[in-house]
Amino acid sequence: MFEVKHMDGIDVFFFMWAASLIFFMKAGFIALEIGQFRAKNVSYHCVLKLLDLAAVFIAYLFIGYGISYGFENIMPLITGTFDADLGAWWMKMVMFAAAAVTIITGGVAERIKILPYFIGALIVGGILYPIVEHLVWGGGFANLGINFHDYAGSGAVHLFGGLVGLMAAYVLGPRIDKYINGKPQAIPGHNIPIAVLGAFILAFGWYGFNIGSASGIANGVELASVAMATTMALAGGIIGGALSSRNDPLYTANGMCAGLVAVCSGVDLFTPIGAFIVGLLAGIQQPFTYKFIEEKLKIDDVCAIGPVHAMSGLIGVICAGIPFLLKADAVSKVSITGQIIGAIVIALIAIVGGLIIYKGLDLTIGLRVSEEAEKVGLDTAILQTTAYSEE
Amino acid sequence: MFEVKHMDGIDVFFFMWAASLIFFMKAGFIALEIGQFRAKNVSYHCVLKLLDLAAVFIAYLFIGYGISYGFENIMPLITGTFDADLGAWWMKMVMFAAAAVTIITGGVAERIKILPYFIGALIVGGILYPIVEHLVWGGGFANLGINFHDYAGSGAVHLFGGLVGLMAAYVLGPRIDKYINGKPQAIPGHNIPIAVLGAFILAFGWYGFNIGSASGIANGVELASVAMATTMALAGGIIGGALSSRNDPLYTANGMCAGLVAVCSGVDLFTPIGAFIVGLLAGIQQPFTYKFIEEKLKIDDVCAIGPVHAMSGLIGVICAGIPFLLKADAVSKVSITGQIIGAIVIALIAIVGGLIIYKGLDLTIGLRVSEEAEKVGLDTAILQTTAYSEE
Amino acid sequence: MFEVKHMDGIDVFFFMWAASLIFFMKAGFIALEIGQFRAKNVSYHCVLKLLDLAAVFIAYLFIGYGISYGFENIMPLITGTFDADLGAWWMKMVMFAAAAVTIITGGVAERIKILPYFIGALIVGGILYPIVEHLVWGGGFANLGINFHDYAGSGAVHLFGGLVGLMAAYVLGPRIDKYINGKPQAIPGHNIPIAVLGAFILAFGWYGFNIGSASGIANGVELASVAMATTMALAGGIIGGALSSRNDPLYTANGMCAGLVAVCSGVDLFTPIGAFIVGLLAGIQQPFTYKFIEEKLKIDDVCAIGPVHAMSGLIGVICAGIPFLLKADAVSKVSITGQIIGAIVIALIAIVGGLIIYKGLDLTIGLRVSEEAEKVGLDTAILQTTAYSEE
Repeated sequence: MFEVKHMDGIDVFFFMWAASLIFFMKAGFIALEIGQFRAKNVSYHCVLKLLDLAAVFIAYLFIGYGISYGFENIMPLITGTFDADLGAWWMKMVMFAAAAVTIITGGVAERIKILPYFIGALIVGGILYPIVEHLVWGGGFANLGINFHDYAGSGAVHLFGGLVGLMAAYVLGPRIDKYINGKPQAIPGHNIPIAVLGAFILAFGWYGFNIGSASGIANGVELASVAMATTMALAGGIIGGALSSRNDPLYTANGMCAGLVAVCSGVDLFTPIGAFIVGLLAGIQQPFTYKFIEEKLKIDDVCAIGPVHAMSGLIGVICAGIPFLLKADAVSKVSITGQIIGAIVIALIAIVGGLIIYKGLDLTIGLRVSEEAEKVGLDTAILQTTAYSEE
Repeated sequence: MFEVKHMDGIDVFFFMWAASLIFFMKAGFIALEIGQFRAKNVSYHCVLKLLDLAAVFIAYLFIGYGISYGFENIMPLITGTFDADLGAWWMKMVMFAAAAVTIITGGVAERIKILPYFIGALIVGGILYPIVEHLVWGGGFANLGINFHDYAGSGAVHLFGGLVGLMAAYVLGPRIDKYINGKPQAIPGHNIPIAVLGAFILAFGWYGFNIGSASGIANGVELASVAMATTMALAGGIIGGALSSRNDPLYTANGMCAGLVAVCSGVDLFTPIGAFIVGLLAGIQQPFTYKFIEEKLKIDDVCAIGPVHAMSGLIGVICAGIPFLLKADAVSKVSITGQIIGAIVIALIAIVGGLIIYKGLDLTIGLRVSEEAEKVGLDTAILQTTAYSEE
Repeated sequence: MFEVKHMDGIDVFFFMWAASLIFFMKAGFIALEIGQFRAKNVSYHCVLKLLDLAAVFIAYLFIGYGISYGFENIMPLITGTFDADLGAWWMKMVMFAAAAVTIITGGVAERIKILPYFIGALIVGGILYPIVEHLVWGGGFANLGINFHDYAGSGAVHLFGGLVGLMAAYVLGPRIDKYINGKPQAIPGHNIPIAVLGAFILAFGWYGFNIGSASGIANGVELASVAMATTMALAGGIIGGALSSRNDPLYTANGMCAGLVAVCSGVDLFTPIGAFIVGLLAGIQQPFTYKFIEEKLKIDDVCAIGPVHAMSGLIGVICAGIPFLLKADAVSKVSITGQIIGAIVIALIAIVGGLIIYKGLDLTIGLRVSEEAEKVGLDTAILQTTAYSEE
């Protein structure tokens, strides 16, 4: 993913195309998430999503990019005296950071306070994620002699973001009415079509997320090959999600996203059929992983960020090391051992870091809204507004 | 539309820009369609749309592209050993195939079973559409000495997709409550604003659909000229739709789409005023064509794919052969005879092929959901879910 | 913004990328606006938005572009005999015109008649806006010796569009139930999440609006620098909106848009921190400006176009002349005096022109719907339809 070379205008334009598409994934995340929970908390969730975007843009400018790619970059960035390469890479990578951090809301929806959520986004976007980014794309793993391949972030963005989100959800505890006598209750989303439209906005952005992970436009085969693997993986994810959930609309739409999450790591290496299989696996596992998290781990993962991001991210990272899924000339570039080690390191950073951050926030300023507010609905109780004033 | 030449990175990037926009039209189709029918079938429709996307991506990889542009392409595609040209052309053309096939749902909404619908999408996307594609863009018509010009698919995608969808709707028969004593009843859409937003997502994607039909970025005048004709046709379609429906929101928004459908065929040939007129005609005809289909043909065309795709596609194909609408240097490139012959051949393939496929499916595994399910609503009866759980 | 030089294919592709994104902002405007008012007028508003798009495309082809950049351009445009430069510049600039004009609906929503609204859009898009455009981007101010810098239109598009919209709202008078005994009443929007999604579609399009204001892709630093300033300004706008409204979802989402409006003028000049500050100011001022317009000016500004477009536009124009917000090498390019003079001229043209146009329409064919229609709801009373048929 990351070779700094002098970029001329066309490569910068290519990066801006990708950065704007990855930015738009934010709208996809919002629509996909708000559709999956109750109307009484929708406007509140929109505010969380707006604030985490601002938090990451600020934190990644002042410190995040420095941790990932060298502190010498910070002053040119802040003063606006950067060259085309630095400016273009910052623009693209800040959007990856924003995507990683915003996954967290899918786990903590309907019960986290705004201020700690915002502070958490500053820390994850400014420090924790950049540590992983440095390892994966900033040369960290390579300097440690670990051959870890993660072209577009199954590990760095999704395994990481999914696990941090699950830790935050774990520290928060489940929604009031999620468990009755220890048995999980279904809390249906209030608007399935908006969630499906959100999944499609995400998938649209994902073409920028994956194709844009090239370091420029010079290699046409790389661009086309990444695009085809992306296309076949989303098809596999749809089929997998539909099969394992008997055509449930959310699992089928989330299957498309799970397939896209999984293909990222080896999207430049998979054959089209390999990519389809990776997507299929990611789509199929969703209901089983969700059930495991809900019943065994007792984590109330409101928008299924466990199956869609953490598990699919893990599947993707591992599959990128499995030869029969790869193009002939790709096999030598990766090692299953490197993929497993990398996944373990990312998972440890996410789990330990996530617990420290959100437990720390909980112990200091409190993470959770009041029970009263949760019952009434956060829109009304905390923001004195309502998402649908005429209903 | 179709000259294979060695493509360098910038042309591949141009194709990826177009392919991602055409992919996003899928979200536009979903929003435009679900807004035009009842809430009780919305989630079910989302599943149909997800599945037909996967079906086309799979079928077009394994067989579709081979039928259109030569079977020698299939192995390099499947094994991932393609060059930039083949990979980039597959990526763009698979999205045209997906657009053609997904039109069908607009005709069969609210009453088709999932499995036969999926199988139908595999066959249309993998075999029937590629036959037309071969004729129009794969050299078929040219080899037959037919001068048929269809730059961005008024005929190949929209006339074809609209007619296949009408045939499927014909075989299915109308919705239970559509006709009372033979008189058609209005079944209002449940969400007009989502439908209008869908029309705008489609129009946004259409800039990729039309501008992206160039074989590369070398010819700046071609790109700008196609963009301007697209822009003026959508304006004409809006005015036409508003005039003939007295500002009905759906006909006005669908007018924008009808204008865009019609301009595709000669979008590289029309003057801006010519394009406006083509759009105007397509926008104006909608209510009359809809009434004819509803009352004379007794086909329950739920989302007006007849007027918006089939008839507008036909108008576009014919207008591309009418000199006074064309730029001076374009007139010699087309012949009205060639346009008419081409339209007839496409229509025959779509009608005969559509009847065979959907009647075949009907006679073997049954095409239609049960009457009980239709009354209760497909979301609840078949998927045990509901689109709006709090309403 | 505006140097005509021979454009090769890649620059035309760059302009088409920008033009399609700016076109898509239309969908953002619709979603942001309809979410902010009542369900009974939603479909009607969609028709207004479709019609003003067509009006601007038509008027800008036949006369608008001629006023802005020279009447010698009109014949080549109409006959389709333009070169790549003219075609590409028309395509980009028509979308700026469409954005400026569509701001007006945010002021006049829920009570303006369709025909006068359409005629107003023709006149503003074809004559009034092009006069401002000529001054700002067509060399008018420069010929008058006024050094006015407005890279992406804080003044030309947003200060102008916001003030014209406020004048139209002033002429129309407030909605029936807006003031009781002279005291303004809150009329809550019916769908906050759609409005937030609209704000994100706008922000996505804004990357084309700002980055696309370069005259080509040659200068990579310019593209990256504009993108970074855009990114930091939207972050500032979010923080400002959240702070001054205590996390109100609409003010926070509109804060993102206000920040983007304000950064346009000096987006090529601001440091990232300067851009953040500009965004912060624009976000913070919203509730105060809204209150001033509502209580002092007694204008019923339905969708807050005063704070989001007019005031943020003014803030942006002025800030572009404030050295400490600018990059070192940018300070010499601008003068605060020039910015102030330019802002005053634009404001005068918008206010006087807006009053003449809308008062003229009011006195001739009447601007306002009947009181009866307003009470019942424009969808039902005028279009015999309803946005949500099942509610």
